[in-house]
Amino acid sequence: MAADVVIAAADVERRLAGLDAVGRRASGFHRLAWTAEDRAAGAWFAEQAAALGLRVERDLAGNLWACPPVDPPWAGVGSHLDTVAGGGRYDGALGVACAFAVAAAVAAPVAVVSFADEEGGRFNTPTFGSRALVGRLDVADALARTDAEGVTMAEAMGAAGVDPRRLADAPQALGRLRSFLEVHIDQSRELAEAGAPIGVVAALAGRLRVAVEIDGEADHAGTTRRGERRDALAAAAQLIVAAERQAAHVPGFVVTPTRLLVEPNALSTIPGAVRLWLDARAADVAAVDAWRRELDATAAELAAQRRVEIRLRTASRSAGVSFDRRVRAALAEAAAAAAGGAAPEPVCFAGHDAGVLAERLPAGMVLVRNPTGVSHSPAEAVELADAALAARAVAAALEVLA
Amino acid sequence: MAADVVIAAADVERRLAGLDAVGRRASGFHRLAWTAEDRAAGAWFAEQAAALGLRVERDLAGNLWACPPVDPPWAGVGSHLDTVAGGGRYDGALGVACAFAVAAAVAAPVAVVSFADEEGGRFNTPTFGSRALVGRLDVADALARTDAEGVTMAEAMGAAGVDPRRLADAPQALGRLRSFLEVHIDQSRELAEAGAPIGVVAALAGRLRVAVEIDGEADHAGTTRRGERRDALAAAAQLIVAAERQAAHVPGFVVTPTRLLVEPNALSTIPGAVRLWLDARAADVAAVDAWRRELDATAAELAAQRRVEIRLRTASRSAGVSFDRRVRAALAEAAAAAAGGAAPEPVCFAGHDAGVLAERLPAGMVLVRNPTGVSHSPAEAVELADAALAARAVAAALEVLA
Repeated sequence: MAADVVIAAADVERRLAGLDAVGRRASGFHRLAWTAEDRAAGAWFAEQAAALGLRVERDLAGNLWACPPVDPPWAGVGSHLDTVAGGGRYDGALGVACAFAVAAAVAAPVAVVSFADEEGGRFNTPTFGSRALVGRLDVADALARTDAEGVTMAEAMGAAGVDPRRLADAPQALGRLRSFLEVHIDQSRELAEAGAPIGVVAALAGRLRVAVEIDGEADHAGTTRRGERRDALAAAAQLIVAAERQAAHVPGFVVTPTRLLVEPNALSTIPGAVRLWLDARAADVAAVDAWRRELDATAAELAAQRRVEIRLRTASRSAGVSFDRRVRAALAEAAAAAAGGAAPEPVCFAGHDAGVLAERLPAGMVLVRNPTGVSHSPAEAVELADAALAARAVAAALEVLA
Repeated sequence: MAADVVIAAADVERRLAGLDAVGRRASGFHRLAWTAEDRAAGAWFAEQAAALGLRVERDLAGNLWACPPVDPPWAGVGSHLDTVAGGGRYDGALGVACAFAVAAAVAAPVAVVSFADEEGGRFNTPTFGSRALVGRLDVADALARTDAEGVTMAEAMGAAGVDPRRLADAPQALGRLRSFLEVHIDQSRELAEAGAPIGVVAALAGRLRVAVEIDGEADHAGTTRRGERRDALAAAAQLIVAAERQAAHVPGFVVTPTRLLVEPNALSTIPGAVRLWLDARAADVAAVDAWRRELDATAAELAAQRRVEIRLRTASRSAGVSFDRRVRAALAEAAAAAAGGAAPEPVCFAGHDAGVLAERLPAGMVLVRNPTGVSHSPAEAVELADAALAARAVAAALEVLA
């Protein structure tokens, strides 16, 4: 344990404050991928790097790298700068600010990485940049996706100066990293309730995203008799209720109907089509898979009852990630020293770039206490003193792992 | 009964065919109010009027009038030319085409009227033009409404050449009508199943539109534990299921969740807010009112269970309309003569301009058989021979009522 690594809360705050004006609106931060706000966050990244004498590169997926002046491989530290629409101050940005604080504080060469489009808020492509880097992105599918204005990701990337035709070659940059550590705001109240300023993530939970297409028939809301209706939204409502009920017997299993689109969505018309996305997560992915089988059966029954078509498709599935034992041990020791007591080791129910990289590299994560437990919202809360402890734990662990 | 009134199916078809290219897309007709497509339909209206020597005027609500060259009051016949997004060929347009056929066939002076924005598909303002004409429109509320692109109705009207500041004066044109008759496609299979080409509407059903606002909290879909969630969409799904169930015991009572908007509607985020519209209709409005009371109680329970706010508001309510007895009798006699047998006299579950005008004038409606029973969709179907019978019945009734 390098007891002499000191990172002040004021240092982290000063770095983070540089992002406070970037994409901020009354409803929260809006830094969606490949936008002007995203570009402005990149300018902040370049300033931070320049102040530390780090060279900025953008890889073929648009991930930003602040590279040390030595040959790779490097120890990577970072997170992301994009937000959901109406996000908070800390999700992502805190990890990048801490990474620069770590790079400034340690003697070992550190590459700071900000992954592109972690939230996937514009094209429904979460952990885009890290998945592209490890070669686990369906490139053609991603590039063809469109945002709410009908702009394809390929067009948006191109307009942001990243050539979409080279996206498939993004994994060539992966060899420059020998490890990756990420600081991130706790997205639950788990640390706050435990009275712990920081925690070391043991694993990421199993996750399933199901895309549901329901096709009925648009018809007049008044004149169509009950037996003649093929109401896609009434069917969707029943499916949502069933999806939640069928997870209720598994402790900690959470199901969310995150996104729903109705056609034609007009006041006098029976909905003819619904697109719905269900998000299911549990510590054990087997519980998620069992839930999915039951949901398929329920959907088939509903389709027959209501004379609608219901198609369920796995949009993404993660069996969960267990972080590298050696990295976890180093982080746990450093966290205990920094925080003055053993740090909790929670299972994390969110997806993260560090979790994607963990498939290919030794990786780990430190969470920072969040008293509100809220994320993806302006209600996110962090004491910068806690964040400084996290950065200090990362810095100390890096010296052990080097 | 003026047995000598003859209106050929080919005459109605020829008139209607002039609208076939106006606003047509792969998904159906798109002639929303105050759009270029709406304006193009107005050009068709002007051509039809000119061919009959009728003078075209636009009243202060944007309703189109083809006026006979005599002093008012006139017998009015008409319907509307706007459609929902993705509507069919006949809803509205058939009634205006028939009205011109009637005006061409009868000796008495007839004013053809096409009401503005009957569907309300753009600003959620159904029967806008007729409500403005009878002075039963909340003018300030309507003008402030925005479409999907954020354009206010005032802006859209102004761009379409109708001064929104004069909308409140629209009722000054009402005195020009002494009666109003409307031909409309049957929006159910009722006539088709009865083997009747046309029917005379006895009454419009009781209707209630409830606007529901549900406010929870946007939060991370993975990391927010069950007990901490304030999921607005899960609450909305339960409310939809309950709304349908609580109407099930009343024969013919139909409930539709017509429109639903989710915020932020993002893949990894618990929905923080939902806006939902429920449409409830029954022959007896007392059944609708009882349903509403039960729904209020259910919403209060759900709000407490899920820690969300749920506000229900009556967006519109109609106790139903019984059409004028003398008009009904004249239409029934003329319909029986035209169709060669007594015509059904159904209760209609849709709202119509004729129903709005019936509050102030003798009014009536003739429905035309629709084998699919579908409306607000390209699947609408009408035999023009049936439509010609409807027009002929209107023409004959006009001569009796004159």
